[in-house]
This record gives sequence, structure tokens and C-alpha cells, in this order.
Amino acid sequence: MNLILLAPDELDADRRATLTDARRLEHLIRVHRAKVDDTFTVGVLGEGVGRARLAALDDQRAVFEVPVLTQPPPPALPVHLVLALPRPRMLARTLEHVTALGVKALTLLHTSRVEKSYWQSPELHPDKIRQHFILGLEQTQDTILPEITLCRGFRPFLEDQLPALLKDRRGLLAHPGMPNACPREVDEPTLLLVGPEGGFIPWEVEKLLEAGCEGIHLGPRILRVETAVTALLSKLF
Amino acid sequence: MNLILLAPDELDADRRATLTDARRLEHLIRVHRAKVDDTFTVGVLGEGVGRARLAALDDQRAVFEVPVLTQPPPPALPVHLVLALPRPRMLARTLEHVTALGVKALTLLHTSRVEKSYWQSPELHPDKIRQHFILGLEQTQDTILPEITLCRGFRPFLEDQLPALLKDRRGLLAHPGMPNACPREVDEPTLLLVGPEGGFIPWEVEKLLEAGCEGIHLGPRILRVETAVTALLSKLF
Repeated sequence: MNLILLAPDELDADRRATLTDARRLEHLIRVHRAKVDDTFTVGVLGEGVGRARLAALDDQRAVFEVPVLTQPPPPALPVHLVLALPRPRMLARTLEHVTALGVKALTLLHTSRVEKSYWQSPELHPDKIRQHFILGLEQTQDTILPEITLCRGFRPFLEDQLPALLKDRRGLLAHPGMPNACPREVDEPTLLLVGPEGGFIPWEVEKLLEAGCEGIHLGPRILRVETAVTALLSKLF
Repeated sequence: MNLILLAPDELDADRRATLTDARRLEHLIRVHRAKVDDTFTVGVLGEGVGRARLAALDDQRAVFEVPVLTQPPPPALPVHLVLALPRPRMLARTLEHVTALGVKALTLLHTSRVEKSYWQSPELHPDKIRQHFILGLEQTQDTILPEITLCRGFRPFLEDQLPALLKDRRGLLAHPGMPNACPREVDEPTLLLVGPEGGFIPWEVEKLLEAGCEGIHLGPRILRVETAVTALLSKLF
């Protein structure tokens, strides 16, 4: 928690923020060993980042005096990430990784090799997803929540969503055995598609290439989804 | 488990391998739904990779007929990674990530901001470390175990080990605020140093730079150690 991240509705009219949740209080008290008058790096969701004074603290609440925060959050990556829905524990970690890396647009997609049961996971509840995003933002001192779309059918994605996503973006399909290596230091808007464990099936690859995606590979090593996504984003940007 | 990884002493004189451990048996039976006469991708530690026939299977053992394996494992990264000892759970995941990415030489280092208690963690037991390496190798179809050194003092590392490590390697110190961005597509032998959560202290940075390391940064985002290591290795190689 490198940032005390506040929701706008936690600020009163005098820009005093009162935190009462156990998670942040415990972190302030146990990890930061916070004392009144200490200053902390704070951010407000959708706004900026800056320093704020801790005006009051006990085991029930912490009160910060939050000035207008003028420092912008770190820049976002110019990418829309389309990720075949990973298994729940992998999803949780991957959401934190990609948020910390600066992804702001994410589609979770059903594909042939995604287990249908994964769509019933409690990890997909909006509150759970938001919590992982918050952890990623706190890690990296960011204030802008990613936007997420759940797409429970591959064909509807292909027909209804992909054409618009590719309109102003370079589409990159990450898949083992594709002819070209992952490009480096891309700065144009990019659509990055990453398959499930076991990969896209050949029909899916064919359709994505037909739609205008370029196939790219990460080399001979088979990586777990969370490692592969971090590796791809790091090579690309 | 993309590879059935065998230890050399699991092979008999006729190159039949008998597995009796619950982990691999369960994976074969439950995930692969293995049947006698199926073939699997197998590897032998320190040797090659290839296909082997499953000659017998019940809930106590699996027997493979393993030909001489001539396909080499995927190439290693030309890097020696020096990592400030992370907290135990992060260590476990990081060992798997870096093994899957192809790191073959790893030093775990004490620095000022490493909590001393981490050195007492059961995760540092050689059997535990080996198990994480094995999981990373199985993921990425590799057969070459990384070599690991534990270095419980920063000053002994600086004085006794670093000069030799830098002799034939380009030293890169990853630290926030360094003037240069992480270089890309390096192919020379590299020594990569990554600090703990909270970073190296200024004195440590100064000494590492004096010893001949170049300071590099990953941009404005503060990443968790496991994400940062994957990001650095992916940008570098």
C-alpha cells in the first residue's frame, strides 16, 4: 500500500477524509506506525495524487486533511487487454498485476478452453474485481480504475465487439507458434489478446487473424497466464 | 504441468521410469485423464525433452518408457539475478516465475530493508526451493535446474562476490529514480540486481554503482517484486 487511496465520497466539504475500514486502518497503524501530523501519499479515485496530513487517528478511524491533489497519476498503457478468463486464483493475481502495470481497459472473454465453471466464480463479483483493482492502484500510486467488460461468448465478441475494438487499434494475438516475435516499444493504441491455459483453439486463432489481428509469440517457453501477460505488456510498452 | 519431469534416478537400466508420488500421479489421472499407451512430453533433469509412452498406470504408480531424449530444453537467459530476499509467499511465486522465464543463476541477498525474519522462513529450505524450481521447469518444459546462492550479508556480497560476478557481465541495478530506462533486447551476459520492497537504501545504491553497476529504472510505477522481476527480464531479453 504505497498510496492511501480514497473514494471521492470519503471526502467531506472541507476535504477531510475519514477512514473507518479495518484494512487501511491496520495498515496505517501496523505497517506505517502512523502518528498524528505525519504526512502520507494519498490519492482520490479519478483525481490526482499528493501528500496529506493525518489529523486524527485511533483504532476506529483515521482522519486526513486532503489538499487539492494536483499531481497526475502515472500514465496509462495504450492498450485494451482481452484476456481469456483465467481460473479464479490466477484471475485475482492477474487483475492486480495488470492494474499495477497501467492497463485501463480489460475484457474477460470466454473461449473454447475456458472452463465454464470459472464464470460462476465469486471472484467475478463486481466488488471483488474492484477490490483487486484497488490493490493494484494502491501498489502503483495510481487513481484511475480500469474499465472491465465480461464477454461470455467468443462468437458474440468476434462479431459484435472485435470490429470496433480494432478500428483504431493494432490488434496483437499472443499465441505460441505464431511467426513473429512480440514487437517492442510500441506506442500506438493496441488491442492485445491472450488465450487461456492451453491456448486458443485453431478455429479461434483463424477467426482472430481473419479479423485483422497479427499473431505474435513470446518464444519457446510456455508461461502461466499471469507471467505471460506481464511479459507481453513489458515487451510491448 | 506441461512436462512430466523425471529425475535421472527415476530411470532404470532399460530407461523405464516409475512415478509413485501423489502429485504427478494425480495430475496424470485427473488433469490428463491418462491411459496406457498415451504418449506424453517428458524431460529428464539435466538432459533433454521428448515424448514417452505410458506403459502402465494405476493409482499407485505410472510407468513410462523413456527413449533417449534428444530435443534440447529451451535456451536459458544470459542473466545472473541477484534478488533481495522477498517475503516468503512472494519468494515462492517469484522462484517459479523466474525459473519459467529461463533464469539459471540466482542469488538471494540480504539488504538493509529485508526483514531478518525472512531468513528463518521454511520456504528457504533446499527441498522447498527445489520444489518451486521443479514447478517452474514443468510449466515451461525445461530440464535445467537453476543454481541458487543465499547471501545473508550485503557487505560480504559487495566485497567477496560482486567483483567476480561483474567480471564478465554487464551489471544492471534496478532502482526507482535512476537516470536511465531499462535497456531492451540485451544479449550480453548480464547481472541484474533487484531490491526489496522499499528498495535498496542510498548507501547500498552508492556502493553498487561504485562497484560498476549501471542504474536503471522501470518507469514511474512502483511494482511488486514478482511483477518487477518479470517486467525487467521481459524488457531486457
